[in-house]
Amino acid sequence: MLDTKLTQRLRQIVGEKFYRDDQEALVAHSYDGTPMLQSLPDGVVYPANTAQVSEIMKALAEYRVPVVSRGSGSNLCGGTVPVEGGIVMVMHRMNRILEVDMENLTATVQTGIITAEFTAHVESLGLFYPPDPSSMKISTIGGNIAECSGGLRGLKYGTTKDYVIGLEAVLANGEIIRTGGKLMKDVAGYDLTKLLVGSEGTLAIITEAILKLVPPPSSKKTMLAMFKDLYGAARTVSRIIEMKIIPATLEFMDNPTIRVVDDFAKLGLPLDMEAILLIEQDGDPETVERDIERIREICEFEKADRIDVAENREHAEKLLTARRSAFTALARLKPTTILEDATVPRSRIADMVLRINDIAKKYDVSIATFGHAGDGNLHPTATTDARDHEEIHRVEQAFEEIFEAAIELGGTITGEHGVGLVKAPFLEWKIGAAGMEVMRGIKQAFDPNNLLNPGKIFAKETRKRVVIDRG
Amino acid sequence: MLDTKLTQRLRQIVGEKFYRDDQEALVAHSYDGTPMLQSLPDGVVYPANTAQVSEIMKALAEYRVPVVSRGSGSNLCGGTVPVEGGIVMVMHRMNRILEVDMENLTATVQTGIITAEFTAHVESLGLFYPPDPSSMKISTIGGNIAECSGGLRGLKYGTTKDYVIGLEAVLANGEIIRTGGKLMKDVAGYDLTKLLVGSEGTLAIITEAILKLVPPPSSKKTMLAMFKDLYGAARTVSRIIEMKIIPATLEFMDNPTIRVVDDFAKLGLPLDMEAILLIEQDGDPETVERDIERIREICEFEKADRIDVAENREHAEKLLTARRSAFTALARLKPTTILEDATVPRSRIADMVLRINDIAKKYDVSIATFGHAGDGNLHPTATTDARDHEEIHRVEQAFEEIFEAAIELGGTITGEHGVGLVKAPFLEWKIGAAGMEVMRGIKQAFDPNNLLNPGKIFAKETRKRVVIDRG
Repeated sequence: MLDTKLTQRLRQIVGEKFYRDDQEALVAHSYDGTPMLQSLPDGVVYPANTAQVSEIMKALAEYRVPVVSRGSGSNLCGGTVPVEGGIVMVMHRMNRILEVDMENLTATVQTGIITAEFTAHVESLGLFYPPDPSSMKISTIGGNIAECSGGLRGLKYGTTKDYVIGLEAVLANGEIIRTGGKLMKDVAGYDLTKLLVGSEGTLAIITEAILKLVPPPSSKKTMLAMFKDLYGAARTVSRIIEMKIIPATLEFMDNPTIRVVDDFAKLGLPLDMEAILLIEQDGDPETVERDIERIREICEFEKADRIDVAENREHAEKLLTARRSAFTALARLKPTTILEDATVPRSRIADMVLRINDIAKKYDVSIATFGHAGDGNLHPTATTDARDHEEIHRVEQAFEEIFEAAIELGGTITGEHGVGLVKAPFLEWKIGAAGMEVMRGIKQAFDPNNLLNPGKIFAKETRKRVVIDRG
Repeated sequence: MLDTKLTQRLRQIVGEKFYRDDQEALVAHSYDGTPMLQSLPDGVVYPANTAQVSEIMKALAEYRVPVVSRGSGSNLCGGTVPVEGGIVMVMHRMNRILEVDMENLTATVQTGIITAEFTAHVESLGLFYPPDPSSMKISTIGGNIAECSGGLRGLKYGTTKDYVIGLEAVLANGEIIRTGGKLMKDVAGYDLTKLLVGSEGTLAIITEAILKLVPPPSSKKTMLAMFKDLYGAARTVSRIIEMKIIPATLEFMDNPTIRVVDDFAKLGLPLDMEAILLIEQDGDPETVERDIERIREICEFEKADRIDVAENREHAEKLLTARRSAFTALARLKPTTILEDATVPRSRIADMVLRINDIAKKYDVSIATFGHAGDGNLHPTATTDARDHEEIHRVEQAFEEIFEAAIELGGTITGEHGVGLVKAPFLEWKIGAAGMEVMRGIKQAFDPNNLLNPGKIFAKETRKRVVIDRG
């Protein structure tokens, strides 16, 4: 329970209507996109501007009350579950596009804006903001920044981090800092901008962002390549890059995913394939034609069993449906879907998929794998039932072993979803005890009283682990 | 003077030959590429590997002796001057390319390797490492990482930061951390990789780096456009970007630079021009042809007085000579050349150049300006004489006002050279008192005893400043 003097002060800051502690508001902000996690906050606050955020933070600092800032809560790492109670700060009212600067190719936005609304606006002006997390229709730019969201275009265009060049943020003590600017180069001190991107709400409340925009590609082409041999598909991925082609999209689905997707979307996919690659290239028309032709040759060389190159935009949309419906199709199978995020160097994708299959067999759980082959970012996805505690335990053991395998293969526990609550016990596996110590020091520097999204990134205890091989 | 027990221990770690405290070694490491700064270290150590760096750091931590790690010391911010004495750690022996991974398009290197040697090796394998600081023939990759070096290709390809995806570093206490990996995506905790890039040797000793490589462009074209009207040149820069062309190079020289360069290199440049733009585009041949043609049209529209498009590689080299010889030509004029690094949003370039000219006139000093117009990174360069204390004082006043102007125009005090010693008193102008506090906290987390490159980034006092306008 919060001190009534604090709740009164919060009501004064944002207005009666924008502070809520009724049961409906508390329950609605007790969970996020991650299955099986819930924790009630004590109150929910909806600030209208940076000055209010600053005032709120001053009040919370005074009363030592934790705060979880969130957009739409579409994250998959338990990143916005208020595990230590306190206040949830919802950023949706701060949703204005403050400026699109056509001369500098930048946009300045409040962070509560929905990603897809922002990209649509930018595209209407003939510009392009490449990060495209699957959640973009509901996620906010602030959420994308907090998690450093990726997406299907990461291989060629990079992730959210590569487009954030300036920030306004409110510190734990209520002070406002501004980092970077409309600047393509700025080395004035430590790069606080990039440090705040991906900091998962644990270092500051990000209120405004300056985003870099780029010219849109003038054409695009889409193809599917299907393989009976998993290694053939994996070699194709590596060979495309080795041949110095960087496709805009290079996505992978394994056999279990193909079966489920075909059953769901009735695409007539051949069910005996071990892997399907979805490949897109964009750019100038000649480049696109040439690259797609060379990619087709590589697929043929690697003995693809079927290659479909889209003849037109409609055809392309149909091919894209296969990959786009993967999560939805899997989610239909069983009551609970757990989507993970192990990432390896792209040369190790086939090894990783086989390891995932072996681990799933070992623990007798259903795991289908799809994801961003081009950047080695795989989404092994378990379909299970949260009510079956015994099976859930096996799923958790399987994922633990999957993270371990990813690290053994030179990879990481999370490529684009973040650490949050779910991966916190495994973070030390990736960065070591000395790395944890440094990160704790950074956290301490920004947030000495541990009020900003406490319980995230830093786990109370690290899972034990035996094998370490950085090969 | 160092404790002889410490110097004995350092000799044991690296071998007799690789610890020096003779006068020649001390003087040779008392200065760097920055004019008028010198401070003797107490000893110079040349480690052979990471284990030795770790042992050295443990010893220095025990004796509380500061350390400045350096490559070739070509920086222009006093970044490697050992202002508090102690040890200079020279990284040149750690100069191996450990691996070029053709499947993952990465290179793993020790940080003491010379940048140009590394890029030549990479190019011999048909790959491309874009960062091209002017110092690259002598600078090291480690130095580039410490300063987040830019170069002529920054606009299209980004800077060093955009290519560093993993690091090995030794902390102040001698512990070794590894960040990132051969991974295009990794959000496992705070982004220590990007934080260490540009940290100027103040957070850790960087011993190894994993660098991202890209496919090289298949063709390239070079042109010069000359303008009697400064604003015509500036509008051309903005319009090229607005027309959604991102050139590989988009460089600027003002009239004083043109005069000096022509006198030096005998290029027959028209001396009545207010500005010359050097423009290069690379990529697929069709794209390059189309972009260069469109850029020529924009130059004509903005009333360029002369446009030279290189017919062949030799011709291109001749055009490039104009920009490449700017610094050398200016350095001939007077005994002391001070090259600065103010950066503004690219839309403010003309305003900034005019402000620089006014400021130079006000303080009666000679300042020529050239630089990277495409990313707003200008190098106002004063030609003066270190022995003329009165003039040097005026030069310093002029630069102080130039930094202030850059910030007023929404820019920064340094785009690619770093803060070091020279810009430290001005850093607070850019990031504010709260930003300074956060940066001090980060420094404290990494280096509680302030042994890593002390005196850099954080000044004992900040220069007073009246006007602040973030417009």
